[in-house]
Amino acid sequence: MDGTLVDGAVRVGGDARQRFYDARGYGRPLDRNRVELAPVEAAHLLSRGDLDAVVDEREGSETRLDFREFLARTGTALRFTVYRDLRDRGFYLSPAREGWPGVDEGDVRRGAPDGARIDFVVYPRGKGPWDDAVAYRIRVVGEREAVPAASLGGVVLAVVDEDGELTYFETDADPDIGVADDEGGDDGRGGADAIDGDDPTDDAPLPAGVDADLLEDRVVCYDADDLYERRFYGQRLLGRNAESGPLQLSLVEGAYLAQRGVLDVESDAVVGRGRDVEGERFDRRLRTYAALRDRGVVPKSGFKFGADFRVYEDFDGVESLSHSTDLVRVLGPGHDFYPRDLSLDVRLAGGVRKRMVFALTAANGQIDWLSAARLTP
Amino acid sequence: MDGTLVDGAVRVGGDARQRFYDARGYGRPLDRNRVELAPVEAAHLLSRGDLDAVVDEREGSETRLDFREFLARTGTALRFTVYRDLRDRGFYLSPAREGWPGVDEGDVRRGAPDGARIDFVVYPRGKGPWDDAVAYRIRVVGEREAVPAASLGGVVLAVVDEDGELTYFETDADPDIGVADDEGGDDGRGGADAIDGDDPTDDAPLPAGVDADLLEDRVVCYDADDLYERRFYGQRLLGRNAESGPLQLSLVEGAYLAQRGVLDVESDAVVGRGRDVEGERFDRRLRTYAALRDRGVVPKSGFKFGADFRVYEDFDGVESLSHSTDLVRVLGPGHDFYPRDLSLDVRLAGGVRKRMVFALTAANGQIDWLSAARLTP
Repeated sequence: MDGTLVDGAVRVGGDARQRFYDARGYGRPLDRNRVELAPVEAAHLLSRGDLDAVVDEREGSETRLDFREFLARTGTALRFTVYRDLRDRGFYLSPAREGWPGVDEGDVRRGAPDGARIDFVVYPRGKGPWDDAVAYRIRVVGEREAVPAASLGGVVLAVVDEDGELTYFETDADPDIGVADDEGGDDGRGGADAIDGDDPTDDAPLPAGVDADLLEDRVVCYDADDLYERRFYGQRLLGRNAESGPLQLSLVEGAYLAQRGVLDVESDAVVGRGRDVEGERFDRRLRTYAALRDRGVVPKSGFKFGADFRVYEDFDGVESLSHSTDLVRVLGPGHDFYPRDLSLDVRLAGGVRKRMVFALTAANGQIDWLSAARLTP
Repeated sequence: MDGTLVDGAVRVGGDARQRFYDARGYGRPLDRNRVELAPVEAAHLLSRGDLDAVVDEREGSETRLDFREFLARTGTALRFTVYRDLRDRGFYLSPAREGWPGVDEGDVRRGAPDGARIDFVVYPRGKGPWDDAVAYRIRVVGEREAVPAASLGGVVLAVVDEDGELTYFETDADPDIGVADDEGGDDGRGGADAIDGDDPTDDAPLPAGVDADLLEDRVVCYDADDLYERRFYGQRLLGRNAESGPLQLSLVEGAYLAQRGVLDVESDAVVGRGRDVEGERFDRRLRTYAALRDRGVVPKSGFKFGADFRVYEDFDGVESLSHSTDLVRVLGPGHDFYPRDLSLDVRLAGGVRKRMVFALTAANGQIDWLSAARLTP
């Protein structure tokens, strides 16, 4: 059985509708039992021998293309890898083309070149294009393709690495972190603009005017055991096993507390030291830190995991500390992800059973949260 | 008991030699039972109450400094954290200062500002400055301090993160990877300059003139099962479970094989495509790939681990594939490591029980290998 390449799609006659669409969810039905297949669907049928060849009638002359020639002609090798893999896993799926089954207007709009492209709409196992259910919306990307952070959320990235192996990442633009301080949810307002001296991790008010020194890239404070034991600010300067003594605070912790009048150091001096060390990234990190504290969770250094912060969602005193639950990386709102960097972060977080969260933090304090996780469809 | 701050060191009289040097390895002996302490040693004795104060006689007037004032005056908070931690772990250690015990000329030379600085010489547990044995040479760095790759190897980085927690990384400039093709060992010559058609993973010669197409960012080749099964080039285009059919090769694999006449595609075209995709990084990656193949190991994409390559040191056919043993990241020879990036790589590699190896690959093909691993002293 042959197909015919017309206007970037492959038409097949005979009993193609029953054979390909009704029985196995390929393509979309046309009149008279014909179907129209996207190139990647036709490539899959060619690879299985269900189609013998595709006839290209361009330029007047007819050429019969086999699988190899068809792949080369249509440039579908990357998407073919993903399409085949999902078929192998038992899914039916449709290319996100206008007028294709299962594809709504939003998917096509998101398919605009500079929007959040969708390549495939995948149906739940056992369902197909004739049902009204979607399991995944998939975007196919090569290992070296930049992916704008703003285009993520609600889409599964299918990354084809250079060896042709696949990794799926699901992305969520509305991860639930602690208690948002307003109905906006996504909006991490706060930081330098929302100084209220409260700390949701504890009902008692924070202390005020604690004796402290700004030393190198940290703040050392004295006689403030509560800050550490009940709220997990800082670390004991004399080591983890020390039961008392001075606390060393990071510049972010120090600036946060100084801005709230807790420490007797100039907050401008601490912020200035932070900016000396890491420029405007310091302000973004401070805003993210404040937004997390405002949500009632406890951020600490994520250094051991290569992240900005590790986050304790359920903190109830240092004595009963459990594992942290999230890793947070602070990025600019215009950040482009490179799939390999994303793979590194998500793999590490998965290995330590934490959620990987990105805080896309703008200069004005707006924070868009985004989580990413490995998915096995 | 008080010390006196003189020329950046602290002198202590009385029975200080017996009490501090002989019994516990602090400082270096002077005449008449006196000792000289580096500031970080004095800070440690102050923090323990073994010294009451340090008298600063600068500017004519005398000031008695307690622990807090001494830390602020001498700027030793960062190094104090590391010194204290190693003492807590049961080690004696000396600051790497000229004329200090346990410190040889090489350490001091490496202590030059633009060289590979050493901060502490750590003795094996149970040994001290009066013995002739060194367990670790330690360099203290802050979380945000750039560390030149060329300064690593044979040194342990003690990274103090922003919360004041410590992470130790040991670095080795001579990791053993496969079989070096010359006595140089460190020198990964080969790549485009050493094309000999041999493949140490198999005694049989590689095939020649295999039918292949350059498609998008990969090479697809036909009728070359051996390349995959016996030597692990490429992946099955029709999926991992396919038992035959076309192979998709990465551009690096494709370029390597095309340069050796194995594939019937122009190697320049493949290399050109690679450069289109990732610029001169492609050449560096190709050189590293070739050097690894020349050493008899099998590199494959490291994407799932966020690295350039994962490496199988013992490869004996795809049928009996075991876990890969190393992760390789390709960097330029002038690369500066940021401790947080290093932490991410080393933590991930440790989590999957692989060794993290960096290939510092120059434009001329010279490769300096460097491994890094987490250390618990």
